[in-house]
Amino acid sequence: MDIAALKAKNPDHWMKATAIRALALDAVKGANSGHTGMPIGMADVATVLFEKHLKFDAKNPTWPDRDRFILSAGHGSMLIYSLLYLCGDQQVTLDQIKNFRQMGSLTAGHPENFLLDAVETTTGPLGQGIANSVGFAIAEEILRAQYGKKLVDHHTYVIAGDGCLMEGVSQEAIGIAGRHNLGKLIVFWDNNNITIDGTVELSDKTNQVQRFKASGWHVQEIDGHDPEAIDAAIIAAKKSKKPSMIACKTHIALGHAAQDTSKGHGALTDADQAKAAKEIWGWTGGEYEVPADIKSQWEAIGARGVSEREAWEARFAEASTQKQAKFNRALAGDAPKKLSATIKALKKQVSEDQPKVATRKSSEMALQAINAVMPETVGGSADLTGSNNTKTDDLGMFETNNRSGRYIYWGIREHGMASAMNGIALHGGLRPYGGTFMAFTDYARPAMRLAALMKIPTVFVMTHDSIGVGEDGPTHQPVEHCAISRSTPNTYVFRPADTVETAEAWEIAATSKTTPSVMSLTRQNLPTVRTEHKLKNLTEQGAYVLAEATGKRQAILIATGSEVSVAMDAREKLEAEGIGTRVVSMPCMELFAQQDESYRRKVLPAGPVRVGIEAGVRHGWDRWLLGERGRENKAAFVGMDSFGSSAPAGELFEKFGITADNVVANVKAML
Amino acid sequence: MDIAALKAKNPDHWMKATAIRALALDAVKGANSGHTGMPIGMADVATVLFEKHLKFDAKNPTWPDRDRFILSAGHGSMLIYSLLYLCGDQQVTLDQIKNFRQMGSLTAGHPENFLLDAVETTTGPLGQGIANSVGFAIAEEILRAQYGKKLVDHHTYVIAGDGCLMEGVSQEAIGIAGRHNLGKLIVFWDNNNITIDGTVELSDKTNQVQRFKASGWHVQEIDGHDPEAIDAAIIAAKKSKKPSMIACKTHIALGHAAQDTSKGHGALTDADQAKAAKEIWGWTGGEYEVPADIKSQWEAIGARGVSEREAWEARFAEASTQKQAKFNRALAGDAPKKLSATIKALKKQVSEDQPKVATRKSSEMALQAINAVMPETVGGSADLTGSNNTKTDDLGMFETNNRSGRYIYWGIREHGMASAMNGIALHGGLRPYGGTFMAFTDYARPAMRLAALMKIPTVFVMTHDSIGVGEDGPTHQPVEHCAISRSTPNTYVFRPADTVETAEAWEIAATSKTTPSVMSLTRQNLPTVRTEHKLKNLTEQGAYVLAEATGKRQAILIATGSEVSVAMDAREKLEAEGIGTRVVSMPCMELFAQQDESYRRKVLPAGPVRVGIEAGVRHGWDRWLLGERGRENKAAFVGMDSFGSSAPAGELFEKFGITADNVVANVKAML
Repeated sequence: MDIAALKAKNPDHWMKATAIRALALDAVKGANSGHTGMPIGMADVATVLFEKHLKFDAKNPTWPDRDRFILSAGHGSMLIYSLLYLCGDQQVTLDQIKNFRQMGSLTAGHPENFLLDAVETTTGPLGQGIANSVGFAIAEEILRAQYGKKLVDHHTYVIAGDGCLMEGVSQEAIGIAGRHNLGKLIVFWDNNNITIDGTVELSDKTNQVQRFKASGWHVQEIDGHDPEAIDAAIIAAKKSKKPSMIACKTHIALGHAAQDTSKGHGALTDADQAKAAKEIWGWTGGEYEVPADIKSQWEAIGARGVSEREAWEARFAEASTQKQAKFNRALAGDAPKKLSATIKALKKQVSEDQPKVATRKSSEMALQAINAVMPETVGGSADLTGSNNTKTDDLGMFETNNRSGRYIYWGIREHGMASAMNGIALHGGLRPYGGTFMAFTDYARPAMRLAALMKIPTVFVMTHDSIGVGEDGPTHQPVEHCAISRSTPNTYVFRPADTVETAEAWEIAATSKTTPSVMSLTRQNLPTVRTEHKLKNLTEQGAYVLAEATGKRQAILIATGSEVSVAMDAREKLEAEGIGTRVVSMPCMELFAQQDESYRRKVLPAGPVRVGIEAGVRHGWDRWLLGERGRENKAAFVGMDSFGSSAPAGELFEKFGITADNVVANVKAML
Repeated sequence: MDIAALKAKNPDHWMKATAIRALALDAVKGANSGHTGMPIGMADVATVLFEKHLKFDAKNPTWPDRDRFILSAGHGSMLIYSLLYLCGDQQVTLDQIKNFRQMGSLTAGHPENFLLDAVETTTGPLGQGIANSVGFAIAEEILRAQYGKKLVDHHTYVIAGDGCLMEGVSQEAIGIAGRHNLGKLIVFWDNNNITIDGTVELSDKTNQVQRFKASGWHVQEIDGHDPEAIDAAIIAAKKSKKPSMIACKTHIALGHAAQDTSKGHGALTDADQAKAAKEIWGWTGGEYEVPADIKSQWEAIGARGVSEREAWEARFAEASTQKQAKFNRALAGDAPKKLSATIKALKKQVSEDQPKVATRKSSEMALQAINAVMPETVGGSADLTGSNNTKTDDLGMFETNNRSGRYIYWGIREHGMASAMNGIALHGGLRPYGGTFMAFTDYARPAMRLAALMKIPTVFVMTHDSIGVGEDGPTHQPVEHCAISRSTPNTYVFRPADTVETAEAWEIAATSKTTPSVMSLTRQNLPTVRTEHKLKNLTEQGAYVLAEATGKRQAILIATGSEVSVAMDAREKLEAEGIGTRVVSMPCMELFAQQDESYRRKVLPAGPVRVGIEAGVRHGWDRWLLGERGRENKAAFVGMDSFGSSAPAGELFEKFGITADNVVANVKAML
C-alpha cells in the first residue's frame, strides 16, 4: 500500500483518519490489550461516513432521529471510542481513552450500550451487530409509518468484519433485510482478508458479493482507503431501495509492521513499531495527543448534526400534542395508562370463564388485549405463527408496501429473529416480541444473553415448553431450557399456570424497561387455577400461595406452569388423607428471589416437606426445595432427569412420573 | 402438476415412489400427528437415489463403507421409515410403521440415531443435518487418506428443506464444505416453496442457487419429480470435485388436496382426502399395504448393496492384520492401550514439575500426548487456534491436497464447527474435538445439546472460562455457561483445576463412547494443586478430597477449576486460625452425581459449613451446598450473580469477591 500517495492525494482526510489510527494504537498499547488493526484499517471509511453522511450530534447522542451507527466488529472498539472522543462526545473524554479497558471506565473492551449513550448496541459476539441492525432498520420503517417522515427518517450504518459474515446469524440477517427491502440499511464490510488464525482463505472462499446479491442486496466494491470512492459508494447506497453492502478492500493495521497479517488483528504493543507506524502515517502528535487543528476539524464534524437536530426539534414542536405525547411515551418505553385496566379486565373475565386452554393460547389472549392498546408492540414468529399464537387481529403484516404492519414473518431464523428483535428494542419507540418452540431457545441463545446483558426488554415467546409437546419427541421437548434462561443474569423466566398468570406475566414483560422476558408456554390445554379474581398482579411477587393447607401444614408443593394443576390434584389427594398441603405457584423464580426474605419465608416456611414439580430438570430448584439457608426441610423433586421421548403427551407425563400420584408418593415417603 | 403424465412416463418408478407416499400418508393419519407432505414431495428423489445410487445394504445398515443418507429435514421422518421398511430393514417392520410416533416405538416423531441403526443422525432441529453432513464428508476424506480407497470410499447424501437453508448454521456448513472441496457431499434441496407460515416468499427471497455457487458449490436445478433428471443430476454431482447441491423443484403433498400449501407441511389426516389422493396416485393398496410386486422390487433395491458390501469385506480381509485391528478399534471407538500409560506419564511429570500454566495450556499438553497415540482424533478451532491451544505438532492441516491432515480451521463458525464435529463422531472411526471461547457455548449450543441427545462423545474445548478473561469484558466472560451445560442431560462438564486434572479429564473425554464433554478451561495461569502423583484418575469420581482438615473439620470448601487454588489459599488462612478445613475439588459434577451415595457422603459429610467457590453463577450448586437431602448444613457460595466487566482479570476477581479472604469471611460468618 502506497501510504505516501494516500497522504498526498487527500491530506486533510488523511490526517483526520490518522487521528483515529493514532488513538487506537496508543490506547491499545496503554491497555496492553485490545485490537489495534481494525480501527486503523477502517479509519478512512469511518472518517468519510462521519464527516459527510452520518446524521448525528456528538453532544446529543440520543437524539431520536439520528442515524444509527453500529460497530458489528465490536473488537475494534477503539474505532468508535476514537470517533466519539474526536467529535466531542461528553462521555468519552481523553481520560476515558487513556483508561481503555480498565476497571470502571466507560471504554470497555467491547462497546457496551449500557456504558455509553452513543453506543447503540453491545457488540463483540460476532454477527450480532449486523443482525441487530436489521432490527434497527425495521424499527425505523415502522416508526416512519407511524409518525411520518418529518419525525422519523434516518439510516442505519454498520461496520462488519469477516467474522460477522462467517457467523451463520449474518445469513439470517441478510435474508431478512433482503426480503424486506430495508433500503436504509447500509453495511460496510471491512474486507481485510484477515482472521485470527490467518488469512480468510484458511477457512473460507465465499464470494461475499455474490452471496449478498443472492439475497437481494445492492452491492458495491471499493477501495476502503479511498475517501472519494467511499463517499460515492455511500451516496449510491443511500439512493438504493435495497439494503446495501459496500465491500471495502482494506489493509488491517495499515502502515504498521503487522499490516495485512493476523498479528495485526490483536494488540500491537511494541513501542518501536508504534513509533515507526506513526512516522509512516506522518503523525506528529505525542501519545494520546491530537494536534489542535485536527481536533477542531473533528469537533466541527461532531457538531455537523446540530442544525439537523434543531430542525427536527422544530418539526417535533409543530406536531400535535397527542402525537408528541405518544412519541415521547413510546421512546421512554412507558406503558400506556390503559394497559393496567386492560389486563385486569382480562383477568377478571378468565377467572369467571375459567377456560381450559394452552398457555400459548392464553398468551394470544393477552396479546390481543395488549396489542390493541400498545401501538409500540411488534410481533412475529420464526415460521411458527399458528403454533406460537403470536399474531393478533390488529397487527397487520410488515411489508415493503405496508410499513405500518406490526407483524413480522421472520422465517426459520430463530437467531436472526432474536437478534433483530434486540435491534428493534435498542432503537427505541417499539417493543418487540417473537415466538419459536422453547427447545429452540438454543438457536436464539446468543441474542437472548445479549438482551439480558444490554438491559433491554425483548420478549421471547417460547411455546411447546415440555414433554407436553408429545409426538415430536426429544429434539422438540425442552427439558433444560428453563434452567438455561434462569441461570442467565437479568432475565425473567415466566412459566405461567393458566390464563390469569399469563396475563400477569405479559403485563410485567410489556412494562419492563431493563429486563428481557422468556415466556415458557404450553402446547397442551390447562385448567384455570386462578379462579378467584384478584386485582393485584400476583406474578409480580414471583411465587405465592395458591392453595393453603387445611389444618396442620405438613407439605408444600411448589410448581410452575403446567405442573401447577398437577400440584393442585396432588393436594386434593393428600388433603383427603389428612395431610395438610399448601400449593405454591411459582411463575417467576427471579421475581421471587427479589422479594424480601420475610415474604419468601412466609411463602416457603421451614418445616413442612417440600416437593418441587416442573416438567424440566431440577437444576436451579434446590434453592427453593432445600431451604435457602439449608437445614430447613426434607425435599424431593418431580420432573425430568433425562431427555424426553416421542409419544402422545399424556403418556409421557405418566412415563416420566410427572403425575399427582407420584407427587403424593413423594410427600408420603418423606413424612 | 400432471400426475397422469408422471405415472404414464415412468410407471414402475411411479409405483415405487408412491409406496413411500402411501405409507407416509397412512402412518401420519394413524398417528394423528406428523408431517405428510414432505415424504410425498421427495419420494421421487429418494426412490432414484436408493434405486440407482445409494450404496447400502438394508440388512446391514451399519456396514462401514456404506454411503451415508441424512434426512436434514427430519420432520419428514416417514420418508426414511418408509424407505427402510420397503427395503427390508430389520428394525423398521410394518408394526413399527403402524406405531409411528407411539410410546416405545423405534419410529419416533423425528429420526433418532439411537433408536434405529440406519438413521445416521438425529434430525429435527433444522439445519443440523446439513451441518452434520459436512462432518460426515470430512470424516470420509480423512479415513480414506488413513486407510486407502479400498476400505473407505463413499458418498454423503442429504435431503434438506427450505427450513434447513434458512437456518444460519447452513451458511456455516456451506462455507466449510465449499472451502474444503468436499466433492463427495451431495445435497438435495427440497425446493417446494412452502414453510409452515405460508410460501417461502413470505420470509425469504434468497436465490439459493447463487448462494451455494458463491461458496464454491456445484449446483444443478431439476424437476424433482422427473426420475431421469434426478438420476442424471446425481451422476453429474458424483463427478464433481466440489460439493454438490441439486435444487429439486417439488410439490409438497403432491396429488393431495393440500398440495403446494402450508397445510401440506403438517399432518394430513382427513380420510376422504387420503382416499382421493391415493386414487389420483393410482394406488390400490389398502391401509399400510404395499402390493407384493412393489414390495419385492423395493427389497431388491434394499439388497442391491450386498455384493458391494461383500466385495468390501473381501478387500478388508486382505488388509494387514495391523490395519484391520486399527480400523476395527477406531470404528468401535476404543481407546488404544497406550493411552492410559501416556496419561499417567504426563500426570507424573506435571506433579513433579508443578507448572503454573493456564488449563488451556494444560489441555494442549494433554492433547500433545493423546494425539500422538490416537490417530483417530481430529482437532480444530473456530478461528481461535492460538487461544484455544487446540493444535498439536503432529496433526497436520486438513486440506484439499492433504486429506490426512487432522486439524481443521473451522473459521468463525462455532455452530457449524460443533455440528460438523457431531457428524465426524457419528460417522465413526474418528474422535473430534474443537475449540472456541466458553462464552460462545451460546453459538454452538444447538449442536452441543444434540451431541448429548445422540449419545456421541464430541469434545467441546471451551477456553477463557470466566471473568479471568479480563479486559474483553462481559460479552466474552462466561458466567452461566457451566450451568447451561450442567443442566443438559448426558453431558460431562469438566472444569479442571490444574494440569493433572486436565489430563484426567481428557482421558475420560477421549475414551467416552456415549457422552459428550465440555472442557471449561482458563485463560489465566493456575498453580499445580495435584502435587502428589496418583496413578488413579481422581477426576473419574467427579469430586474428591484434595486437602483434609487438620483437627476438627469445621468447614468444607468445594471448588472447581481456577477457584480450587482460591480454596486452598482460604484453607491455609482458616487452618492458621484453627478452623479445620477440608478442600474438595469437584472437576465434574455429573460424575460425582453418578457415584454411590456412600462415596458422596464421604466427600461431603453432613455437619461442617460449606462454601462453594466457582467464578460462575450458583445455579446448580445448591445440591452440593445445602446437602442432597436437605437439613444437613449451613452453606454459602462465592461466585458470580451478575455479568462480568471489562478490566484486568486480577482486579475483577477482587471486585466480584472471588478471593480467599472472602471465602474465609463466609466460613467465619457461619460458624
